[in-house]
Amino acid sequence: MRTLGALIFPGFELLDLFGPLEMFGMLPAAYDLKLVAETPAPVASAQQVRAQPDTTLADTPAFDILLVPGGPGTRAQVQNQGLLAWLSSASNAAEYTLSVCTGSLLLAGAGLLDGHRATTNKAAFAGIAARYPNVNWIKQARWVEDGTILTSSGVSAGIDMALRAIEKMHGLQAARTAADEAEYTWNRDPRHDPFAALHGLT
Amino acid sequence: MRTLGALIFPGFELLDLFGPLEMFGMLPAAYDLKLVAETPAPVASAQQVRAQPDTTLADTPAFDILLVPGGPGTRAQVQNQGLLAWLSSASNAAEYTLSVCTGSLLLAGAGLLDGHRATTNKAAFAGIAARYPNVNWIKQARWVEDGTILTSSGVSAGIDMALRAIEKMHGLQAARTAADEAEYTWNRDPRHDPFAALHGLT
Repeated sequence: MRTLGALIFPGFELLDLFGPLEMFGMLPAAYDLKLVAETPAPVASAQQVRAQPDTTLADTPAFDILLVPGGPGTRAQVQNQGLLAWLSSASNAAEYTLSVCTGSLLLAGAGLLDGHRATTNKAAFAGIAARYPNVNWIKQARWVEDGTILTSSGVSAGIDMALRAIEKMHGLQAARTAADEAEYTWNRDPRHDPFAALHGLT
Repeated sequence: MRTLGALIFPGFELLDLFGPLEMFGMLPAAYDLKLVAETPAPVASAQQVRAQPDTTLADTPAFDILLVPGGPGTRAQVQNQGLLAWLSSASNAAEYTLSVCTGSLLLAGAGLLDGHRATTNKAAFAGIAARYPNVNWIKQARWVEDGTILTSSGVSAGIDMALRAIEKMHGLQAARTAADEAEYTWNRDPRHDPFAALHGLT
């Protein structure tokens, strides 16, 4: 069984977090899911509903899988040096690091994407790409894989990326079964990104 | 602004709840989202991650919109007469009642679906339909609308239904914008249900 630590912070985006967790949760014998935050108190999402952390950054330095959601709260957290230091250390210890949407802003802020291919939310793409020029930002992508780091485009793209991560660890049939059990039509093509054009990125 | 109460109980399904809330949350001036549970303590989902209730059944008897997720926990809750009585009363007071996946088991248990058209999770369909023969269960449907009650098929179908509910209240463009902001390809056809065939329901 792998431990999966999902980072939460004030202003995280609900579906960035819980879409991938739904898919990993379809393999309950394979993944032990934990929400990790700076402090033990409930954490309000961008939508003002709250999740309860299972552990704190200080108490759990590493997980097998690290999941970083985006959301408007990333704008403040990318200034949080303690959180970025934890992310850097935890990502280096992890088998895979996954970010969804503007979660890639935090990975970039931690220096984890320098010299790597990555993507992010398409509405926020131009600003983030300009801020971190040492990252090879991919404009048109549902998600991008580079070694042990997978970054997805906005919100629901994280579900497709999570299924791909399950495929990498447990094979295609396991990922297809997870999608079918959630009655989700998996977009398996990481290059299929109709949302890039909406934001002038093609 | 409408109040939206989302029922949570031990063993709720993560994406049933947070997929729709992501979409309603795209209109923050239109919907005030609240998680409602029997008691104020954090509630563990089927995947063993926890959400923090904002209010309790006793403290909040009614919302404008009622959202009922499914999950394995519905099997116990359909025996919970206090919860079913609250559901019946809250649904009768609501402008719209929405259930996702086996959330319809709870609506059926509360007597809210008798004489109405409804659907549910396709893996659980046969058992639920046999248990509540006074409901007109629709085998092949992404979601079903009958008056003020909308019921969706499994898990991710709730996202498509939530967008339809936003369309009903705020128009097609508002729903399309919410889907685009979440980089979600909305399945707008309620009859498109490739998962019915997987379970011999066609």
